[in-house]
Amino acid sequence: MATKPSLPQGTRDFGPEVVRKRNYIFSTIREVFECYGFQPLETPAFENLDTLMGKYGDEGDKLIFKILNNGLSDPKNSEKARGAFERVLQGKSDKDLTERALRYDLTIPFARYVAMNHGQLSFPFKRYQLQPVWRADRPQRGRYREFYQCDADVVGSKALLNEIELVHIYAAVFTRLGIQAAIHINDRRLLAALANICGTDSEMTAITVAIDKLDKVGIEKVKEELAASGLNPEQTGLVERYLSIATGSADNQEVIAQLQAFFGSSEIATAGLESLRQLLEGTTTIAGGCRIVIDPTLARGLNYYTGTIFEVKAPAEVKIGSIGGGGRYDDLTGLFGVSGIPGVGISFGVDRIYDVMEELNLFPATVARGTQVLFFNLGEKESRAAFGLLQQLRERGVRGELYPDNVKFDRQFKYAEKKQIPFVVIIGEEELANNSCKLKDIRTGQQQTLKTEQILEQNFN
Amino acid sequence: MATKPSLPQGTRDFGPEVVRKRNYIFSTIREVFECYGFQPLETPAFENLDTLMGKYGDEGDKLIFKILNNGLSDPKNSEKARGAFERVLQGKSDKDLTERALRYDLTIPFARYVAMNHGQLSFPFKRYQLQPVWRADRPQRGRYREFYQCDADVVGSKALLNEIELVHIYAAVFTRLGIQAAIHINDRRLLAALANICGTDSEMTAITVAIDKLDKVGIEKVKEELAASGLNPEQTGLVERYLSIATGSADNQEVIAQLQAFFGSSEIATAGLESLRQLLEGTTTIAGGCRIVIDPTLARGLNYYTGTIFEVKAPAEVKIGSIGGGGRYDDLTGLFGVSGIPGVGISFGVDRIYDVMEELNLFPATVARGTQVLFFNLGEKESRAAFGLLQQLRERGVRGELYPDNVKFDRQFKYAEKKQIPFVVIIGEEELANNSCKLKDIRTGQQQTLKTEQILEQNFN
Repeated sequence: MATKPSLPQGTRDFGPEVVRKRNYIFSTIREVFECYGFQPLETPAFENLDTLMGKYGDEGDKLIFKILNNGLSDPKNSEKARGAFERVLQGKSDKDLTERALRYDLTIPFARYVAMNHGQLSFPFKRYQLQPVWRADRPQRGRYREFYQCDADVVGSKALLNEIELVHIYAAVFTRLGIQAAIHINDRRLLAALANICGTDSEMTAITVAIDKLDKVGIEKVKEELAASGLNPEQTGLVERYLSIATGSADNQEVIAQLQAFFGSSEIATAGLESLRQLLEGTTTIAGGCRIVIDPTLARGLNYYTGTIFEVKAPAEVKIGSIGGGGRYDDLTGLFGVSGIPGVGISFGVDRIYDVMEELNLFPATVARGTQVLFFNLGEKESRAAFGLLQQLRERGVRGELYPDNVKFDRQFKYAEKKQIPFVVIIGEEELANNSCKLKDIRTGQQQTLKTEQILEQNFN
Repeated sequence: MATKPSLPQGTRDFGPEVVRKRNYIFSTIREVFECYGFQPLETPAFENLDTLMGKYGDEGDKLIFKILNNGLSDPKNSEKARGAFERVLQGKSDKDLTERALRYDLTIPFARYVAMNHGQLSFPFKRYQLQPVWRADRPQRGRYREFYQCDADVVGSKALLNEIELVHIYAAVFTRLGIQAAIHINDRRLLAALANICGTDSEMTAITVAIDKLDKVGIEKVKEELAASGLNPEQTGLVERYLSIATGSADNQEVIAQLQAFFGSSEIATAGLESLRQLLEGTTTIAGGCRIVIDPTLARGLNYYTGTIFEVKAPAEVKIGSIGGGGRYDDLTGLFGVSGIPGVGISFGVDRIYDVMEELNLFPATVARGTQVLFFNLGEKESRAAFGLLQQLRERGVRGELYPDNVKFDRQFKYAEKKQIPFVVIIGEEELANNSCKLKDIRTGQQQTLKTEQILEQNFN
């Protein structure tokens, strides 16, 4: 019986045009990464389950796709599996039923790779990675169960030059793609200092998480959440004053001056502000079209960042959230038993970047184009001549086709139209006799008769 | 507690050099596909379980990686799951426990895609697909649980031009990669005719499967297997005579003549032989370095092929099996309820192609190269000057780095060596003062002093 075919929820097929447009984004990012000395890494789609479990919080753990062990029906496995299954029903995981799981992000596999290979790597190690990840999230508009991540990290160096270069990379990529992005920058040390002057170091996480929601819920809700976390009115007042700095001024130097005034002599805040100053100084020459925003309200949620944090926003008119983010962390591989490897990284939200480019019509027209020229098939001898010519064009790098069957002119023409092939070449009996061919530009309707040699010199763009 | 990190059995990390070399193979294949009008398609890593089950035979079914449903610990799922689990222990599959599975090959997802979208596609539809697949095979040398497949198919056309172009594609790719491949070609209709003159049409599969092993086990074992399948000595004698044609002559036309003599007036054999003749005629101009072998012993195992079949063999000295294969089939999408879509396709064995190229040292030296030039970091002012220069080089497309920390000369030098960066640029106090820099080619040890502007005109290859 035939199965009626369908796609799993939250997944997508990418047809030719979409693949080409996505590849345009990927290769733009890749070229810039390579210019900055980052090297490609690829890790397997699945990892050992214990490499992933416990790394993404309880909510994350639930969204990990686990792979059923094979061979469960073998009696030597099934008894163990039965016990394992009961434990899985209780929300645990168990190697006798499942010992592998699909990659949930690119950071943990990278950390696992560095921990396994740190003896052979030369530090600072600069890698980029562009691969799909999978999450069992409830699918909704713009949220998929399979999507690509695209990360670049430098590990084994604390120099601020790394942050400076990452900002240049963001600016170079978005400028090349034609997106006028705003690169928001903050430093986690300011949030630590804020918790500190609130007299509640231990509440830094609560403050970070609450501030992170400012964009979505507004200041009043943030204050409510802070109060619910146990902050008193004086403390929430301090947070509110801190957050008001951002909206008070558009000039980055001015924001830094106000922050310095707010924090006074706080050592940790001063270190963070000095770092922001140097970062601004090192990025005055970023590629045009992008701007830098020192943004005290930037928090980056529950991540493990400890210094600089980044978030890139698309132009306001497209009403899409962040299209990139990242930051500095102290310890990449401690979870895997290798300590002392700090780093800084950024990521690109390629699905959202795609949406922004579609909405603003930023893909160059040639990006989605496949075949440039179609030779019509008008008979055996005619198509043999056409094929000979086509082969010479292909050797010159032209993307061309000969229609495989001698069917009605109309059908061949429709094929060209539907596949958006801009040029067709017609070699019929007459053209064959006098060694010529007709070249037609489908877009303009213009047609010319050429000697066959002349076709080799045509520009098919 | 820190987890000691490891990789799942049968999977691999691909470090920078390997990724670059693999991408060289991928992009070579992709460019040729595009020249012939094939369009890229990407399908999700997992499919609905029932899209895959039953499509690869019983042995294949066992090797499919199934994904455990999420949310099993939720009471509304767990009771059903318990029943489902018992059925899984009996070797069945069940949606209440697992409803998704990892892609096992690229053909079934392609068929699923065509069946779902056939109304919108323009036929002939030419697609290529280059994605990983997963199989729970026992890992061994050269066999992995995650590996890439790379397929091109034309569906919706019966014209032999498609086969001719696929042979040209094989030749173009392997010539560009520098592999002197032999493209073996046969036609399933000859095997049907052979079964027919043996008087045992129904045994065509047995004959095909036995012949397929000829390479590995030799003619005596093939005869034994045929006898075991119920063929009498006269019948096995006919098969032996058929198989001896291949080894008797190296000239393709001569092989065809002998086959014609062997089969006499058999209609189906004559059709197959005529097709082989035309295929030879259409491929006399294939890219140099590759050759075509009409090979009556080629069978392509249990596949669903019905006409032309292909198999590409690496040069004998590398002792590796086939590096590509494919053929013509009658019905791609019947399994999914859409009939009448014939096609022909080929695939490239990219992992093996990689091994062949490594063994024969065929990767161009520049393929694996990342960073072209490293600027040393010799202090704050010096590195600022270096960074300014580096940014200008990057804008010109040069892949360069500035060492992020001002550490000992030796350590920076070792970094360049280990990362195989061919050039280093040194800007110290003296160079800074007189607006110059030292450029050193690490491979030759040659060093020259240049004015800073001159560095922009350097060729860093």
